[in-house]
Amino acid sequence: MTTTETTTTQFISSAQLLEHWQGHRNLTRRVIEMFPEKELFEFSIGGMRPFAKLAVELISIAGPALKGIVEGQMEEFSEEAFQPKTKEEILAKWDSETEVINHYFNQISEERFQETFNLFGQYEFPVYQNILYFVDNEVHHRGQGYVYLRALGMEPPFFWERFSL
Amino acid sequence: MTTTETTTTQFISSAQLLEHWQGHRNLTRRVIEMFPEKELFEFSIGGMRPFAKLAVELISIAGPALKGIVEGQMEEFSEEAFQPKTKEEILAKWDSETEVINHYFNQISEERFQETFNLFGQYEFPVYQNILYFVDNEVHHRGQGYVYLRALGMEPPFFWERFSL
Repeated sequence: MTTTETTTTQFISSAQLLEHWQGHRNLTRRVIEMFPEKELFEFSIGGMRPFAKLAVELISIAGPALKGIVEGQMEEFSEEAFQPKTKEEILAKWDSETEVINHYFNQISEERFQETFNLFGQYEFPVYQNILYFVDNEVHHRGQGYVYLRALGMEPPFFWERFSL
Repeated sequence: MTTTETTTTQFISSAQLLEHWQGHRNLTRRVIEMFPEKELFEFSIGGMRPFAKLAVELISIAGPALKGIVEGQMEEFSEEAFQPKTKEEILAKWDSETEVINHYFNQISEERFQETFNLFGQYEFPVYQNILYFVDNEVHHRGQGYVYLRALGMEPPFFWERFSL
């Protein structure tokens, strides 16, 4: 397969990808919200991180990574900047990052998605692959959150309801 | 945002999406492979399905769904056709479906990805959304498989190693 062939047939536009991602973020938000306060910060299975830690990871990636891509910064990845003590803090930060993501994502051009970028000075891949990684990583960790909720005897939201309340 | 704007800036080409998906399928295959035979079919948390059942769901979606999209069939979704008794059967089917996916995916045109299709006679969405759903659903369930493995005291493969052995 030639390079030309790999980039000529569009699968999805950037606006559609952003909408898709924000739909996932909406669902993840509802999963965070559903956890009882204590379990959000403490419950875990098999030595894994509690869901609050996973949420902080997601918050620490998306906005900062897009900012790095747009501004050409390669600062190291860090989760130190945000150390929430309550669910409310996590949800507030989640919501403010929604705007940060929209702001930076919309500044990335079609050509840029195909360019290689050394994300966080460590992950050198085409920009579109880095962004797909953010989405996939969120779906992956949220799937773990579903197991936590089930283990706590709670029914998680439907996986396909991305934009309902 | 106008319709024109939503479809003009390409995020990812169809060839790139297929490669991305097959990378995920490669990782999911390794997760299936890693489960001890008995636990693959029996282990569960919080009343959820064992990982073998989740794998059968994934196998029952991808190839049949793409075939339906390409051939315009709207047969109901069913997991009845494949009832494996061993890990080996699941892996063999997984591998033969890899080719089925490539075969049908490559017949979907750029215009078709944007058209609405009533998948399995039940899920009426643009084709690209249906396909993203297949990938997301796999990542979601595989994330659950990671928790199962951790609960069994096993270390899952690295999430980002899509194409290594």
